[in-house]
Amino acid sequence: MASFKITLAYDGTDFCGWQAQAAGRTVQQTVEQAWEQVTGERLRLVASGRTDAGVHATGQIASLESASQLPPETLCRALNANLPADVRILDVSPAWPGFHAIRDTRSKRYRYLIQPGSQANPFHRRYAWLVSHPLDTERMRAAAVKLSGTHDFASFQGSGSVRRTTERTISDFTVDVIPSPWEIGSSGRLICIEVEADGFLYNMVRILVNTLHDVGSGKRELAWVDDVLRARDRRVASATAPAHGLCLREVKLREP
Amino acid sequence: MASFKITLAYDGTDFCGWQAQAAGRTVQQTVEQAWEQVTGERLRLVASGRTDAGVHATGQIASLESASQLPPETLCRALNANLPADVRILDVSPAWPGFHAIRDTRSKRYRYLIQPGSQANPFHRRYAWLVSHPLDTERMRAAAVKLSGTHDFASFQGSGSVRRTTERTISDFTVDVIPSPWEIGSSGRLICIEVEADGFLYNMVRILVNTLHDVGSGKRELAWVDDVLRARDRRVASATAPAHGLCLREVKLREP
Repeated sequence: MASFKITLAYDGTDFCGWQAQAAGRTVQQTVEQAWEQVTGERLRLVASGRTDAGVHATGQIASLESASQLPPETLCRALNANLPADVRILDVSPAWPGFHAIRDTRSKRYRYLIQPGSQANPFHRRYAWLVSHPLDTERMRAAAVKLSGTHDFASFQGSGSVRRTTERTISDFTVDVIPSPWEIGSSGRLICIEVEADGFLYNMVRILVNTLHDVGSGKRELAWVDDVLRARDRRVASATAPAHGLCLREVKLREP
Repeated sequence: MASFKITLAYDGTDFCGWQAQAAGRTVQQTVEQAWEQVTGERLRLVASGRTDAGVHATGQIASLESASQLPPETLCRALNANLPADVRILDVSPAWPGFHAIRDTRSKRYRYLIQPGSQANPFHRRYAWLVSHPLDTERMRAAAVKLSGTHDFASFQGSGSVRRTTERTISDFTVDVIPSPWEIGSSGRLICIEVEADGFLYNMVRILVNTLHDVGSGKRELAWVDDVLRARDRRVASATAPAHGLCLREVKLREP
């Protein structure tokens, strides 16, 4: 048996998330089935980020243990030939013995897209949160600065998750306005939020995004962000932004 | 009865084109049904560009005659409330008496997106033609220059179309490389071809794009473009590029 590292991208719209489940199409099961078709092996993939339903990925990393003797490039091509077009294997590489996509992740980087404006854009409907009221990106940036660094993010943890500690370090948190190839009248620009941390609690990115939204829209004052951090209580924090704006962009590994 | 002008956008992926037909979901029928739900009127929409199956639009124009007394903004909101998310009405305006979206079009502007690179990108699969061999955009630009201006485009007319004359004037024809919010490794950039003319023959944009492709890939020499124009014969020209890379961007009207 040898360890492999798989890098993959998927349009999460038509998946019920990463994690295999009894009913519904998931990325994990879809890739595992393709692996079985190619190698005959039934095995379990471990992903660095177990993305929720509707969440996308352009740089997901998964680990697996396989006895396959096929060269990695052959595996990659054969997997893609057996996969639907909304999930693509970008790379298959040999990994060091015992490589595990969750344990060996040093940091992850997510992106969240907001489409500002009142006019829904058919080309953004799968990939960006439509926000019709004005958002002040300068205020959003100031909120991102407050949230950067090492904090106890207990207020930013979705219910149902169990983590040993709720302290995390956000090493980068940016708010930019980017062009889209699909501008329609004034609805072309997208607000692009990127956040990188050594780990994220359940729903943490989407709660962080909604926090920036609440400050950017003027619903909350900037100082409220400090109150939420201090409270360590999910109930005082913001709601959870919709899943479909979110994308796992990059996983950085802790190489041995 | 009063004349109205409707501006609309649609993701063409899940439509069998604009034109109403016996079987299959079309944009025309979808919007006509929404109009009937809102006003009770059964009427016929006329579109400036009758886009094929899979072709998108961000600035389609349609005309209609209606007895509705609802204010245009109310019509616009009510139509969108009755339409699926892949088609959106951007504007409803009163038009001059007798306005007709085909007769009163002065020029149309289309865009075609190519995703260069061997790695299929799940986020471009509905909107860009994947071309895995290298394309020289300088050569493509030189071909676009040769095709610009007034020519007999008989070689660039798909079969099955009947037009009085095959002379058209291309007033703008550009080839650019643009960023995409969905870059994956090296697969982020898109080749963006835009072409504007006083009119287009059936499949003309897609044949023009394939001509640029054949010169850009080195399959054909630049001088071959002159031969094709001179031949006035579909058989000597290029194939037809796939529909899903194409988008109707803008219609300019001949106002009375």
